[in-house]
Amino acid sequence: MSESGSKLTELSSLGEFGLIEYLTKNIPIVNKSTVKGIGDDAAVLKPTPGSQVLVSKDLLIEGVHFDLMYMPLKHLGYKAAVVNFSDIAAMNGIPKQIVVGISVSSKYTVEALDEIYAGIKKACAVYKVDFVGGDTTSSVSGLFISVTVIGEVKKDKITYRSGAGVNDLICVSGDLGAAYMGLLILEREKKAFQANPDLKPDLSDHDYILQRQLKPEARTDIVTLFSDEKIVPTSMIDISDGLASETLHICKASDKGCLIYEEKIPIDQDTYETAKEFGIVPTVAALNGGEDYELLFTIKQSDYDKIKDSQDVTVIGYITEKTEGEKLVTTDNHLFDLKAQGWDALKKRDLNKLTSNKKKS
Amino acid sequence: MSESGSKLTELSSLGEFGLIEYLTKNIPIVNKSTVKGIGDDAAVLKPTPGSQVLVSKDLLIEGVHFDLMYMPLKHLGYKAAVVNFSDIAAMNGIPKQIVVGISVSSKYTVEALDEIYAGIKKACAVYKVDFVGGDTTSSVSGLFISVTVIGEVKKDKITYRSGAGVNDLICVSGDLGAAYMGLLILEREKKAFQANPDLKPDLSDHDYILQRQLKPEARTDIVTLFSDEKIVPTSMIDISDGLASETLHICKASDKGCLIYEEKIPIDQDTYETAKEFGIVPTVAALNGGEDYELLFTIKQSDYDKIKDSQDVTVIGYITEKTEGEKLVTTDNHLFDLKAQGWDALKKRDLNKLTSNKKKS
Repeated sequence: MSESGSKLTELSSLGEFGLIEYLTKNIPIVNKSTVKGIGDDAAVLKPTPGSQVLVSKDLLIEGVHFDLMYMPLKHLGYKAAVVNFSDIAAMNGIPKQIVVGISVSSKYTVEALDEIYAGIKKACAVYKVDFVGGDTTSSVSGLFISVTVIGEVKKDKITYRSGAGVNDLICVSGDLGAAYMGLLILEREKKAFQANPDLKPDLSDHDYILQRQLKPEARTDIVTLFSDEKIVPTSMIDISDGLASETLHICKASDKGCLIYEEKIPIDQDTYETAKEFGIVPTVAALNGGEDYELLFTIKQSDYDKIKDSQDVTVIGYITEKTEGEKLVTTDNHLFDLKAQGWDALKKRDLNKLTSNKKKS
Repeated sequence: MSESGSKLTELSSLGEFGLIEYLTKNIPIVNKSTVKGIGDDAAVLKPTPGSQVLVSKDLLIEGVHFDLMYMPLKHLGYKAAVVNFSDIAAMNGIPKQIVVGISVSSKYTVEALDEIYAGIKKACAVYKVDFVGGDTTSSVSGLFISVTVIGEVKKDKITYRSGAGVNDLICVSGDLGAAYMGLLILEREKKAFQANPDLKPDLSDHDYILQRQLKPEARTDIVTLFSDEKIVPTSMIDISDGLASETLHICKASDKGCLIYEEKIPIDQDTYETAKEFGIVPTVAALNGGEDYELLFTIKQSDYDKIKDSQDVTVIGYITEKTEGEKLVTTDNHLFDLKAQGWDALKKRDLNKLTSNKKKS
C-alpha cells in the first residue's frame, strides 16, 4: 500500500470507496442465514425458520470507553464486537451477523484501521459471526466505533430481564470484578508513565485481569450449556455495569426483590489481591466495577441439579417478593440495600465512590 | 426537568440510565414484526414469513456530514433516520425497525437530545418504522449519530446493484442536484453571517432546494409503485453520492456499460437557476452533487409501459455491453466518459472540482 520506506498510508490516499473496499475484501461468510454480506445498499439475511431475530447496538467512544494509550487497536476491534455478542447471549441467543460503523480522524492511518478491522474479524472468526456491512467515515477528532449485532433465538428460549420468579436462584457465570481491576492497573501505569516516561509499565503477574479488561469474551458457551442441559433461564442480563446495577435491572423488570450473599460472589485470586492493593473491598469491585461481560441469570430451583456441577456457574442468591427489597448479606452477616454505584458513562468516574460504597450502603 | 427559570438540563443530571429512559419513553410499536422494542439487552423481531431481512447502517458525523450552524437538530434526527430508510428502499424493501446510537459531548443539553430524538421519532411515524433500541453515550467532542435499519423484502423482489442487463432502461426517481444546491446556499449564507453577524441570511425563494438538503425523504413510495405495477427492477441503488458515482456502481456490479443522456436528467427549476447563479452547469450538480436520496434503477424494456406515465420516474438512458464503457451524451451531442467526482467524505470537498468537472471529462 505504501510508498518506498514508509509503512504508513494516509486514509485520504485511498478515498472512501477505495478504503472500504480495501478493509472489507476477503471477508468470509460462514452462516447459512447470511444471503448477502458487504457490497450493496444493505446486507440480506434469511433467518433460520422458527427463530426470532435479535438486534442490539453498542457504541465505543475514544476517551469515554477506551484509552488508546493502553488499548491496542486490534484488541479494541475485538472488544467492540464481543461486547455486542454478549448482548445477544444475554437474550439466550447466538450472534450471527454484525454491521460496523467506524469514524476516525485524519490522523489515523490505513494501517491503524486495518488493526481495528483485524480485531473485529478475529472476534467474528472465534464466534462464527458474519461481518456483513458497515460504514467508514472521517471524524473531526477521535475514534468512534458503532457495532450492531444480529442474533437468533428460538421463540421458546428467548430470555428477557423480566421473567424472574420468587425463589428462583440468582446465578452468575465466571468471576467478577476482574476487568475493573485490570483498568485500575492500566490507569496507574499510565499515570506513572506520564510522570516519568522512562519508567517501564509494571504489568507483571496481572495477565488475567488485564486480559479481562483488554480482551473480554462473550459467554455464548453458557448459552450452549443452557441448550445442552435443557435450561431456559427465567431472566438474564449481561454484566457490563457491575453486578449491583444488573441485579437491580432484573428486579425492576421482573417486579421482584432479591437476596444476594456477598460470600458467594465469585472473585478470582488476582482480582482479590489487586483490590486489596488498591484499598478496595474486592466484592465492591465485583458489585460496581464494570465490563466483566459475564451473564447474570435466574433459574427455577428445579433446574439447580443441572448447573450445580458446572465450574462456570455460581449461585449467589435468590429472588424474593418485591416488598422485601433488593438486599445484600455481607460476609459478617449484615443486611444492606443493594445500590448501583457503578459505571455511568455520562457522569465523571469517581473511583473513591467505589471504595467507599460499602459504608454508604 | 429543569430548575426554576432555566429551560436547559445538563445531561449529567439524569445519568445514563435516566437519560435513556427519558428519551425513549412512550415510543410506539406499529409493526407486527416487532416483538420487543427498547428495554432489554436486544430488540426481538419476528420477520414476516417468506420475507428476507435487510440490514444497513449509516453514520452521521458532526463537521463531516452536517454543520449544526444551519442544520436544526430535529431535521438532523429526521435525516439520520431517512438516509437509512433510503438504503432499504434501494434493495426494493420496506424499512421496519431502527436502532440508534448517539454520542454527544457534555455541552449538549437534554433538550438538544430531545430535539434529535423528536426528529427520529417523526421519521419513524411518517415511514411506519419502529424505533426498537439504541445506545446513548457521551463523547469527548462533537455529535455522532449511528443508525442501523432493519427492513423486509420478499425473496423474489430483492434488487441488488448487480442485475442490470444490456438494453435495460436506466431510470431515476424525482429530480437531482437539488440537495447539493441547497448546501451551497447554506454554506454561502454561513460565510456571509460569519463575515458580518448582523446580516440576515438570504434564503428567499429557495424553499425546495433547502428542504432537499435539510429534510430529505426516502423513496419508499417508488417501492410501493413497483409492487403495484408488478415491476421488479433488474438493479437499484440510492443516489447519495451523485448520479455519476451511483451509475458507475451499478455498471461495475452488473459488469456492464451504460449510455446516459444529459438532456434527460431531471432537474428542478430552482436547482437549475441556483446552479447558474453559482456558475455551475446544472447537470454537473446532478451528476456529482450528493444527498438527493432518489432511486437509480434499471428495468427491462418490457416494463416501460408500466412507468411511462409516472410523474416520479424518468428514463435517462440504457445499459450497454461492458466493452462500450460508461458514457454520457451531452445536450450538444458530444460523448464523454462518465466520471465520479462526487462526494468523498475522506477527501476535502473541492467545490471547484464540481464546476470544472465537465471540461475534464
